[in-house]
Amino acid sequence: MSVVEQAQRARTAAAALAVATRADKDAALHAMADALVARTSEILAANGADLAAGRDEGLSTAILDRLALDAGRVADIADALRQMAALPDPTGEVVRGSTLPNGLQLRQIRVPFGVVGIIYEARPNVTVDAAGICLKSGNAVLLRGSSSAARSNVALVSVLRDAVAGTGLPADSVQLLDATTRDSVKELMRARGLVDVLIPRGGAALIRTVVEEATVPVIETGVGNCHVYVDAAADVSKAVAIALNAKTQRLSTCNTAESLLVHTAVADAVLPPALAAFAAAGVTVHGCPQVARHSTAVLPATDEDYATEYLSADISVAVVESLDAAVAHIQRYGTGHTEAIVTDSQSAAREFVARVDAAAVMVNASTRFTDGGEFGFGAEIGISTQKLHARGPMGLPELTSTKYVVTGDGQLR
Amino acid sequence: MSVVEQAQRARTAAAALAVATRADKDAALHAMADALVARTSEILAANGADLAAGRDEGLSTAILDRLALDAGRVADIADALRQMAALPDPTGEVVRGSTLPNGLQLRQIRVPFGVVGIIYEARPNVTVDAAGICLKSGNAVLLRGSSSAARSNVALVSVLRDAVAGTGLPADSVQLLDATTRDSVKELMRARGLVDVLIPRGGAALIRTVVEEATVPVIETGVGNCHVYVDAAADVSKAVAIALNAKTQRLSTCNTAESLLVHTAVADAVLPPALAAFAAAGVTVHGCPQVARHSTAVLPATDEDYATEYLSADISVAVVESLDAAVAHIQRYGTGHTEAIVTDSQSAAREFVARVDAAAVMVNASTRFTDGGEFGFGAEIGISTQKLHARGPMGLPELTSTKYVVTGDGQLR
Repeated sequence: MSVVEQAQRARTAAAALAVATRADKDAALHAMADALVARTSEILAANGADLAAGRDEGLSTAILDRLALDAGRVADIADALRQMAALPDPTGEVVRGSTLPNGLQLRQIRVPFGVVGIIYEARPNVTVDAAGICLKSGNAVLLRGSSSAARSNVALVSVLRDAVAGTGLPADSVQLLDATTRDSVKELMRARGLVDVLIPRGGAALIRTVVEEATVPVIETGVGNCHVYVDAAADVSKAVAIALNAKTQRLSTCNTAESLLVHTAVADAVLPPALAAFAAAGVTVHGCPQVARHSTAVLPATDEDYATEYLSADISVAVVESLDAAVAHIQRYGTGHTEAIVTDSQSAAREFVARVDAAAVMVNASTRFTDGGEFGFGAEIGISTQKLHARGPMGLPELTSTKYVVTGDGQLR
Repeated sequence: MSVVEQAQRARTAAAALAVATRADKDAALHAMADALVARTSEILAANGADLAAGRDEGLSTAILDRLALDAGRVADIADALRQMAALPDPTGEVVRGSTLPNGLQLRQIRVPFGVVGIIYEARPNVTVDAAGICLKSGNAVLLRGSSSAARSNVALVSVLRDAVAGTGLPADSVQLLDATTRDSVKELMRARGLVDVLIPRGGAALIRTVVEEATVPVIETGVGNCHVYVDAAADVSKAVAIALNAKTQRLSTCNTAESLLVHTAVADAVLPPALAAFAAAGVTVHGCPQVARHSTAVLPATDEDYATEYLSADISVAVVESLDAAVAHIQRYGTGHTEAIVTDSQSAAREFVARVDAAAVMVNASTRFTDGGEFGFGAEIGISTQKLHARGPMGLPELTSTKYVVTGDGQLR
């Protein structure tokens, strides 16, 4: 079946989902969870075949790790669906309402987008997560996973579709696109009028391609060259702890800090313990000359270092002359994801928050907190780094649009 | 100066606008209004040159009419700026806020986009309106008007820039792109990273081009193939009045009705007075055979008629078997702008509202009410017909994004 045909089926499914009640949708989520657990052996067999093929192709241990499922992981994935069922339904919410001077009653109501396309890499849990969050928000979903997880995704989506259909909602609420050809990505990107929004989740190259080529509206996610700026008025031990946590709590996430900026006034106090902490954690420091003075282990930082989202045990470190210089550095190299300041100065915090242009600005907290789960949203489809529609962690409301409903008794203009 | 250079200047201006207070911005709006009035003769001289050139090129009377300014129109345009100053500042609004279990204080705050690009046709009042609404919402604007209004726009933007600079905000908050070449449109569409959002205002062809070619995020506006559906349970006189108003109150707007659907049960009651009213108003009816039975003046409606946004004294009219058939017709031919039902049945209204996928759904009211002014928004930059970010009339809040600000005292993950 072509992507266009799948998208047309998704539109039909979306029309049914748009009028489904919360009870209908939650029942489907529970059925999906139960079916995943009941059919675990089928899923693990498919996953085993993906893993074997991946080993033959020489995929890295890290990728194989992310790909691997076991009964425990399947149970966790199922539990995530049950937790989604417990979240409030974003659709139907009255966002704004008033009675106009002529008596017209105006309401702006949250409605599903309709059809959501998601392009993502490796991890099979994303398949189920994305299917669940889209269904809960009343959207049909077209999933384009990676070829390395193709068999796992076929098995998972087969289980999910059967479960959805068993509760009376359309099986085509969840569809998987062919992962063995790039054509399916291209067709999905150009399915304007059939697909309402496309969310690419993956590396910078994937996101750039989608942004360049898509005619469907896109929500850009993920690239995070995040900074921690230690201000002149920072508490030194808090600053070191935040920088270390932001860099090392998990290396491969988009909210991981990739760069540390230290105000010159506290450089001598902050850099020695910070460099020692990084060394102890196995983090390589790429620093400016003022940083290198403090340790022979510091490699010289290039412009490229400052621009790089390492996603590895590396960090760039620079001494800056002022808050102004820190903001300028962040404007130049940042990707608008998460930027943190460590300071006890109210005025410095206020200025940093006002001037830094990013999805999230942290004051005296780790960049790692930019996350739908941490923010209390319950479910997250990705972290938007664009300004249109959604910015920052996207939960259920971010997967909806709105509709104005205007009720009168014959009003004319 | 290239568009990229202009966009870079706009980014610098946007950084200043982002931290400007409401008082700063309102002072600039008043200065802009005062300067327009003070320099009216200069503006009218430029406009006269555009009109003379337009007459030489053989532009239609309708286009020349839309292009023409006089002292009264300039005063009205200035007044619109003063009214914008009186509206609340959307930026800084706390959209959402909570304290997380670990003590982090989370706030989602409205912030300007940064740089907004607007591509529009003919009318010079849009130049001032767009500059005003962007400045009020804290955005720098890049304006690409039509070549027929080039001299008027140069004069208007010169006045606006001087006025803005006079209040201490950057003149580059408002910039005009070269209207004499298509290259400026192309460069603007591809200025990703410099321009945050692009709003094309104009005909379907312009909007299609922008959607196809832009890498900058786009908000699609305007195309409206709007329907009035007269349900079996409709009040006949209200139905006829709404259909007539929706079609004829103004022919050339996107919220004008282009199609009337009548339930077969009330066709014999509704069609004779409706057709008579259209005839009296000089509207040509393109109807299905069941409509043609009622009048020899009815032309046969083709598929293309049903798909056409006439923007003229024409309407397509069809008899439908059911509410279901009406919804199916609207799904097939509608553009997701505004759809109206006339009915006294609560269940029919409820079903129509739930099932019709459009920016605005009217119950017993004219489609002409889909408008920022009518909705009480005070200012409008266009009517979005896409689902991402904004749907329906876009006022000041729709020209903003948000930023999460997270404040802690050393929280780690």
